[in-house]
Amino acid sequence: MSSQTLDVVGIGNAIVDIIASADDAFLEAHAMAKGGMMLVDELRAEAIYAQMGPTMISSGGSAGNTIAGIASLGGRTGYIGKVRDDEFGQAFRHDITAVGTIFRTPPAADGPATAHCLILVTPDSQRTMNTYLGACANIGPADIDEDLIRCAQFTYLEGYLYDDPSAMAAFRRAAEVAHAAGRRVALSLSDAFCVQRHRDEFLALVEHHVDVLFANQGEIEALFQCGWDEAIARLRPLTDLAAVTRGPAGSVVLTKDEIIEIAAEPVVRVVDTTGAGDLYAAGFLFGLTRGASLSECGRLGSIAAAEIISHFGARPQTPLHTLVTA
Amino acid sequence: MSSQTLDVVGIGNAIVDIIASADDAFLEAHAMAKGGMMLVDELRAEAIYAQMGPTMISSGGSAGNTIAGIASLGGRTGYIGKVRDDEFGQAFRHDITAVGTIFRTPPAADGPATAHCLILVTPDSQRTMNTYLGACANIGPADIDEDLIRCAQFTYLEGYLYDDPSAMAAFRRAAEVAHAAGRRVALSLSDAFCVQRHRDEFLALVEHHVDVLFANQGEIEALFQCGWDEAIARLRPLTDLAAVTRGPAGSVVLTKDEIIEIAAEPVVRVVDTTGAGDLYAAGFLFGLTRGASLSECGRLGSIAAAEIISHFGARPQTPLHTLVTA
Repeated sequence: MSSQTLDVVGIGNAIVDIIASADDAFLEAHAMAKGGMMLVDELRAEAIYAQMGPTMISSGGSAGNTIAGIASLGGRTGYIGKVRDDEFGQAFRHDITAVGTIFRTPPAADGPATAHCLILVTPDSQRTMNTYLGACANIGPADIDEDLIRCAQFTYLEGYLYDDPSAMAAFRRAAEVAHAAGRRVALSLSDAFCVQRHRDEFLALVEHHVDVLFANQGEIEALFQCGWDEAIARLRPLTDLAAVTRGPAGSVVLTKDEIIEIAAEPVVRVVDTTGAGDLYAAGFLFGLTRGASLSECGRLGSIAAAEIISHFGARPQTPLHTLVTA
Repeated sequence: MSSQTLDVVGIGNAIVDIIASADDAFLEAHAMAKGGMMLVDELRAEAIYAQMGPTMISSGGSAGNTIAGIASLGGRTGYIGKVRDDEFGQAFRHDITAVGTIFRTPPAADGPATAHCLILVTPDSQRTMNTYLGACANIGPADIDEDLIRCAQFTYLEGYLYDDPSAMAAFRRAAEVAHAAGRRVALSLSDAFCVQRHRDEFLALVEHHVDVLFANQGEIEALFQCGWDEAIARLRPLTDLAAVTRGPAGSVVLTKDEIIEIAAEPVVRVVDTTGAGDLYAAGFLFGLTRGASLSECGRLGSIAAAEIISHFGARPQTPLHTLVTA
């Protein structure tokens, strides 16, 4: 595959997910905010892991999930992110390249282990995430593969990168390169707590540097520190195109001219909501690269999200291209 | 938990499963016998892995799955098996102790990596396994925790241990210790190819050293090198109690006096048959430790097997004790 022809290149924290079922009491005992992502250091990660139930391990990372989803839909993708050369790092590399993604970021030969996210899935299928960033902190502007970015229609960035100064610098460099090459930049706000941590920066990004914004309702409300209706009203003048997910209520696509409501796809049994937003973004972006209408982009996002929440783990278990024909 | 009161201690190859979907052409291209377990060396494991699709990683190992299943049913369990002190070894240890199993076998500090099994799941939900034994080859009679075995009602052994001379010696030592303590020994025949490799040894084991035998139809036919009816007729005089699974056709419990047919539990969608036999054995053995009737033991086995084949991976995702009340 020539990298001359990429649809989307994603940049994010390269993370392996370690997933276990847990009850609400477990979250309370460990002071975890349900539905959120908390950063943890190595010691706390070890303490949580020691008390978690039996696990499943699957490649994750927000942008990694999105890129794997686009690849599963048939898109041509690249990924930039930092792992170590350990077993989890090898698994991450395997899984993202196995779907055809170009992933050339060299692994760190020393320093902290590959990032992992301890995910507790409660009986209501919500996921609560505890992330040890490990090797992700080693990513920096020098890891930004400028050729890859220049040849991709979209550069997709996750807000989580702002949690590390060096990764933030890499994020900014990537956006500059993409725009200088006349390409479009998409951003996921990632998490309401992450938005709270970097609110001013994200507001400036959305207004000046982002062509397509992905978020969920809580993240938009955190960004503008107000309720849904007002948040939407304040968002629309700032951005050309935003897609905001609302869980079972579906999603809303916003432009300066339009508000398009998209229904959620029906799911027989919701098992684990990890990756729902990431996969919505995958379907939506794939649609944009194929010139689909905004409502069709939303439908593609909803289908991809529906697949991911029907099982544990945030990478597709059914090739998504088989689900979207018709 | 005092180890004075164990229900079952299992001894097996401590393996982490790496699972991917694949089509029949993949199996053919790699000369894999569908439904079987093949031993592979490190180089071949790497070559297969490099071509596999995106993966899920989950603790496995036949006896490990059975012991985790018994623990999930509420049984008191122990496990003996060899991992290395690497990331996969830590994950294996975490997962089996997280369900309350006593696992004291020290990890290998050097030598080959923790065993892993590359599992290809075809669209018909069958699994085809390629096992790199790695650190399992380091288990030997010295690893047999005799106290653990003496205090368990049953010692459960997997036939796969016969694939390594040192593990075979550990197997034999464990069976001796159990019987010397007046405990019962259960054996799983593991795999038809494994039976072919060790047929004479397994025949002698079944006749002289095994109190409860677990197998599937193909393994019994391989053991006696004949068809189903004749195999059953030849098996019954050799053993006091055998439970033989037949996939969707359910299972058959055999004693010298009785043949009890057990129906399979209905499953909405069979996703991955990995671990079906292991979990059947879990339910059946748990029933025996609780003094259940043989037909009730078979029902418990069928329920546990039904849970495991409804998702990827061979460890329960729903606590089994919640499925068997009534």
